[in-house]
Order: sequence, then structure tokens, then C-alpha cells
Amino acid sequence: MSSLNKNQSIGIDIGGTNISIGAVDKFGGIIEQWSLKMKDCPTIEIFQNKIEECIGDYVRKHKAEILGIGVGAPNGNFYSGTIDFAPNLPWKGQIPLSFILSKQFDRRVVLTNDANAAAIGEMIYGAAKGMKDFVMITLGTGVGSGFVANGELIYGHDGFAGELGHTTAIRDGRPCNCGKKGCLETYTSATGIVRTVHEFLARDNSPSSLRDIETITSKDIHNAALKGDALALEIFDYTGKILGQSLADAVAITSPKAFILFGGLAGAKEFIFEPTIRHMEANLLQIWKGKIRVIPSELKESDAAVLGASALAWER
Amino acid sequence: MSSLNKNQSIGIDIGGTNISIGAVDKFGGIIEQWSLKMKDCPTIEIFQNKIEECIGDYVRKHKAEILGIGVGAPNGNFYSGTIDFAPNLPWKGQIPLSFILSKQFDRRVVLTNDANAAAIGEMIYGAAKGMKDFVMITLGTGVGSGFVANGELIYGHDGFAGELGHTTAIRDGRPCNCGKKGCLETYTSATGIVRTVHEFLARDNSPSSLRDIETITSKDIHNAALKGDALALEIFDYTGKILGQSLADAVAITSPKAFILFGGLAGAKEFIFEPTIRHMEANLLQIWKGKIRVIPSELKESDAAVLGASALAWER
Repeated sequence: MSSLNKNQSIGIDIGGTNISIGAVDKFGGIIEQWSLKMKDCPTIEIFQNKIEECIGDYVRKHKAEILGIGVGAPNGNFYSGTIDFAPNLPWKGQIPLSFILSKQFDRRVVLTNDANAAAIGEMIYGAAKGMKDFVMITLGTGVGSGFVANGELIYGHDGFAGELGHTTAIRDGRPCNCGKKGCLETYTSATGIVRTVHEFLARDNSPSSLRDIETITSKDIHNAALKGDALALEIFDYTGKILGQSLADAVAITSPKAFILFGGLAGAKEFIFEPTIRHMEANLLQIWKGKIRVIPSELKESDAAVLGASALAWER
Repeated sequence: MSSLNKNQSIGIDIGGTNISIGAVDKFGGIIEQWSLKMKDCPTIEIFQNKIEECIGDYVRKHKAEILGIGVGAPNGNFYSGTIDFAPNLPWKGQIPLSFILSKQFDRRVVLTNDANAAAIGEMIYGAAKGMKDFVMITLGTGVGSGFVANGELIYGHDGFAGELGHTTAIRDGRPCNCGKKGCLETYTSATGIVRTVHEFLARDNSPSSLRDIETITSKDIHNAALKGDALALEIFDYTGKILGQSLADAVAITSPKAFILFGGLAGAKEFIFEPTIRHMEANLLQIWKGKIRVIPSELKESDAAVLGASALAWER
């Protein structure tokens, strides 16, 4: 190992489906990488055993060089280092993950919201380089967000800020895992858009290749749209409408230079970006029309949150 | 004048109805105060003449002691020093007010959104003393807001952040002065609640003392509620519902410790606070229930923005 990347930190990105782990140098180079399925980690104890298997030896081997561990997790709290009542994780209640991992690996652990971690990754290494005001939106199993203003992440008074996915998109709309109704993530997450497919398929008998798929995923909808399936295109328009309306409201609050879309649904590219931008524009105040960018992440899907989480460990 | 308050700044609060002006010392003491009606200032030239009459002599007399002028105005832009397309002011287009006033008075001028100025006033002298994360909401002719996160005002990438009044409260709802539909301020401003009165009076023939008033103001609705008028109470509940729902969504974004309500409608006290808090609570994620305060301003109605605007002049 060259002296340049001798100092490393470990970044851990915990998602509802996947857990990505990386050993990262100061320049954002990922030196080693591991991946786990959340379904294989039904309890924290099993998660601890699994990461012991993949990173335990690595951390011990590079003892002096590993400066810290950064974690991005849904409902991750920057101030308390806990994951609190995350509706999309199998780990229920309040999990003192910083404490658990710092004991396990004898390293300082910094934890935040997964979308906040991705925002830091994007700000230091990706599409938000040089921006002081932007919003990271993760369209994955749920919808996460990280708001950056004046060059700093907004953590809020309690460390829980940035839950755009749980603002109300449609009053008394779809039931959400969080217990509320009509949350943005019930429409514009990878799982939300699948709910839209079922809703639209139930609505009438219009032909669509989506009728022939047993277990539909957001990738199937993208594939159908690529082949010109009218229902798939309508579904993206509807999803972009709901997302664009929410982005317009978010602009009115923090006036970001850009939204950076990230995660499974963002992979549908123009099918989701075009209607999102069109409907956002239609709902912006005059002063913002044509001024706010909606752009894709410039980091590899699995890397943004890992890089951001690892950067947390450098920062503090 | 004692040496303690020798250093002064001028704070100017520009509202849709009133313009308040104060000479303020470093301790928030208002040394002299002036007031103008916006209807007497139909153009910027007339406004310049009017303030020349009230503060021109004062500024010349205290030449050395007046360190600067701070202005809070609807659609005021911190970065450019301009008022841009303010729908509730008679001054149309883009007004380079900082430039105009700095030429007129030969003083440095700092300008921002009127609600941002009020937020600074509240943070330094009022209910938000010591808070690093809070939101100021002004319920006046329109609905303004100033978001403070990490101890700093969120200006956004272009200086226009903090327009909660123009987030959508009801999709395809009431037409707003801004050209959009269903904006929060068409329901929860002093003028919005009067629209609700007319809507509810048109709905049926239920008895209400409000039927006997020729030109209803928000003060009349408060008076009727004080006397137990059922329709007035229903109107406050409806208004608090819409405001509370919006506050819950704002919590999900910046997680403030408190909302500080200010302006005409906040004067209705428990009639507006109780339903606002109740409906906000009903729409909060579990993690925030019972944790976010909604409190009144601790500064005199006319003082918060004047004090905040004057503090702007100290700061930079």
C-alpha cells in the first residue's frame, strides 16, 4: 500500500435491501469493498457477526491506519449515534449502533442518515462538488433526502432533519410504513412506483407488457418504458408529477441550486427526470423557473453513501 | 445620548400594509421610531421622499453613529440587495433598494426577506434566543418564513429561500397573487382567513355574527371567536389544520426546535395556536411527536423585523 492512501476510514451504507461497506482513502479511492444483504441480517447480533467476518480482520490488520468508521443508515441520528425506529429496516426500536460498532472495532464511529451520508459523498466527490446549497434525493426502497444549506448538512435540532420522503404528497393518500398517509415515498420510491403499477393495472384493461410479469420491480417498468409501453410511460409521468410537485415545495423552503437524484428509480434516467423537471417547473414561483437543476448522481450507485459515510469519519 | 447606545443602525421593515422604521442601538433598544402606510407609498420615488422626511434629518444629525441600514422586505434578496417581483407590494418588477438607499443616505445597506429579518430579531432579542434550529412564520398580509439551521439563516443559492407561504397547501386550491394555486398563504394569512370566512358564509345559512360585518378583518374573526361564535371557531380550526399540516411537512425537512408565529393572525392566540399544534402533531412522524414547540413571538409586533433588520447592519 502506498503512503498516499495509508490513512483510511471505513464507510458503511445501510439500506433496506443492501448493506455496502468500503475501506476508503482520503482521496475517495475505495481500497476494499464488501456487500451484505439486509435479509441475511435480521438482528443486530447477526449483523455484527456478518461484518466481523468481512471487515473485522481488515480493521485489525490495518489498525493504525483506520482512523474511524462512518455509517449512513435510514433514521440514523448524527447527534445520538442511534438508528431510531427505521420503518424500512428489520431492526426495530432504537439501536445504539455507534456505541455497538465502536466497542466491536475499537474505533470512533460517526453515524448519520443514509441520504445525508450520500449528500456528503456527492458534495466531496460527485455532482455537488463546489455547491453550497443542494438537496440529495435517494429514490430507493424508501425516499431519503439530505439538505445542504450554506455548505453544511441540515441535521435539525435533534439530528433527524431531511425526511422529505415523509412529507405529505397526497393528503389522505396511500398508507405508509411510518403510519402516516400519502407520504412522498409511497409514490416515488422503487416500491412506491410498483404500487402505482398495481393501481393503474386495476384501473382498466388497457394492454401493457407489465400485465405479464409476476413480481414487478421498478426495473421492469423502466424496461417496458424503453419498449414504448404506454402504461409504463404514464406511470413515469405520474411518478414524476408527484416528485416534481414535492421538489417545487422544497425549493420554496431552501432554494437549492440543484437536486441530485440517486438510487434505483433514478436509473430510469429521462423517463423519470423529464416529467419530474416538467412538473417541478410548473409549480415553481416565477423567480425560480428555469433556475433549479435536477441532475443524476455522479457516483456509482453503491459508492455515494459509502464515500460519504467514510468522509464523516474524517471530518469529526 | 449615553455613550452606550452611541452606535446605532437603522432597521426598516417593509410590509404589504405598513412600513416600520427604527433607530436601534447595539442592545436592541429602539431609540427613535417612525411608521408609514404602504398605500401612501405607491412608487419607490414617493417612498424615498417619505423616508427622507422621517429619517433623512436623523441620519444626517447622527452621521458618525449610524453604522448602516438594514431592510426586511417581502421577496427581499440578501445577495443582490433587490426586491424582486413582490406580489403584495405596489412596487413591481425588480427594485434595487439597497443601491437606492445607500446612495440616498450614504450608508451601507443590507437587505433581506422581511421574515428572515424577523427571524434574526427573534434569535438575538426574542423567543428564539439560544436556538440554532427554528423557523419564524409571519402570518400577515401574506405568509412569510425564515428558516434558521445550524445557527444560520438559510438564504438558499440565490437569496430567496424561506417562502413557506408559497408551498402548496391544497393542490389546485385558491388562486394566489403569485400566479400559483393553493399556496399556504391563501389560507393562513390575515387575508386568507377572510377568504375562508366568505367561503364558509356562502356554504350554508348557519347563524354567525360575522354575517353582520361589512368589511371583515382577521381581528373581527378573533372577536367573534372570543364571544363563542361557532363559525369563527370552525374557521380557526380549519386555518390551524392547514397551517399545522404545512408545519409538519416543514419539520420533516429541517427539524426545527420551534416555530415562532408572528403577525396579525398570531394575535388570535389560542384560537390559532391550539388547532395548529393539534393538526401538526397528527401529521408528524413518531420521532417528532410532542417534541416541536409552536410559540408566539416575544417581540412587539412592529419591533421584530425592525430589530432584525437593524441587526443585519451590525452583522456584516
